[in-house]
Amino acid sequence: MAGVIWFTGLSCAGKTTLATRLKEEFENRGIIPQLLDGDEVREIFGGDLGYSRSDRIMNVKRIAFASMLLAENGTNTIVANIAPFYEVRDFIRRITRTYLQVYVTASLDTLKGRDKKGLYVKLRNPDVGDVIGLDDEYDVPRNPDVIVDTDQETAVGAIERIIKCCRTKGIL
Amino acid sequence: MAGVIWFTGLSCAGKTTLATRLKEEFENRGIIPQLLDGDEVREIFGGDLGYSRSDRIMNVKRIAFASMLLAENGTNTIVANIAPFYEVRDFIRRITRTYLQVYVTASLDTLKGRDKKGLYVKLRNPDVGDVIGLDDEYDVPRNPDVIVDTDQETAVGAIERIIKCCRTKGIL
Repeated sequence: MAGVIWFTGLSCAGKTTLATRLKEEFENRGIIPQLLDGDEVREIFGGDLGYSRSDRIMNVKRIAFASMLLAENGTNTIVANIAPFYEVRDFIRRITRTYLQVYVTASLDTLKGRDKKGLYVKLRNPDVGDVIGLDDEYDVPRNPDVIVDTDQETAVGAIERIIKCCRTKGIL
Repeated sequence: MAGVIWFTGLSCAGKTTLATRLKEEFENRGIIPQLLDGDEVREIFGGDLGYSRSDRIMNVKRIAFASMLLAENGTNTIVANIAPFYEVRDFIRRITRTYLQVYVTASLDTLKGRDKKGLYVKLRNPDVGDVIGLDDEYDVPRNPDVIVDTDQETAVGAIERIIKCCRTKGIL
């Protein structure tokens, strides 16, 4: 059964990198998944939502809704999106039948070191919004299916563990 | 190629009835489409959006986003949703590759006669929101692919014409 694999974690933790690698692994197995990257989705909508708590919630929920429908219709969906609050992650879990949550994390020093967009120095800059995890809240996942600490583990090793978890869930 | 067939029109015009019949016609041809009914989508989201103009826009856009992704992944999607403004219907058209717009209409007397929910008498009741077309705006489609006047035409005849249009668009 197709499912939704959601990479949550702070900015620059490595969500998009891992999601893209996972997509390739699916394709290597002859399965074409839909990849939804948070930044790209915001572009499709022409940046109609900002970075307030309520706007972030609305943004995650519309991605979750599309992902659920795709999975129900047989398309595995891989999402790279911070989904920062318990409230929104609970929504994803509630509406999605087969759901795999991957929590991607790294030390704050590592996040700052990777930060090409300058998100971690432009705090409270209205152009980029507040950076969650520094000046806003990020609810650390209580029970993720997979935790990837990108300080400690290579992408190859992490993807292997995620693939194994996909098999357990019946996704692969 | 899979597409999005969107039934727009005022409350009680016959959108859900026609969309459900079209779904059955697809199924008779061995194709399983996704049906998205505006009221049911609101339930999935727990009624998080109201009936202000901006909330209606947000609601239509998230349905459009999911529909586009479904079609891109090979699932024909049939939507029954008022989508009242040019702005939102332009958004649907912009993001969707294969799109068929069906404008469902009837006389105001007919709409009132069919109105089991009492939408047309509960004007400005906060529980149901304003009824678009009576006390709010509904932008009459400028260039729909199919117009169905449910005062004049049976569902059977309308569905035949819609199926024909689906074929022209390469959907069937």
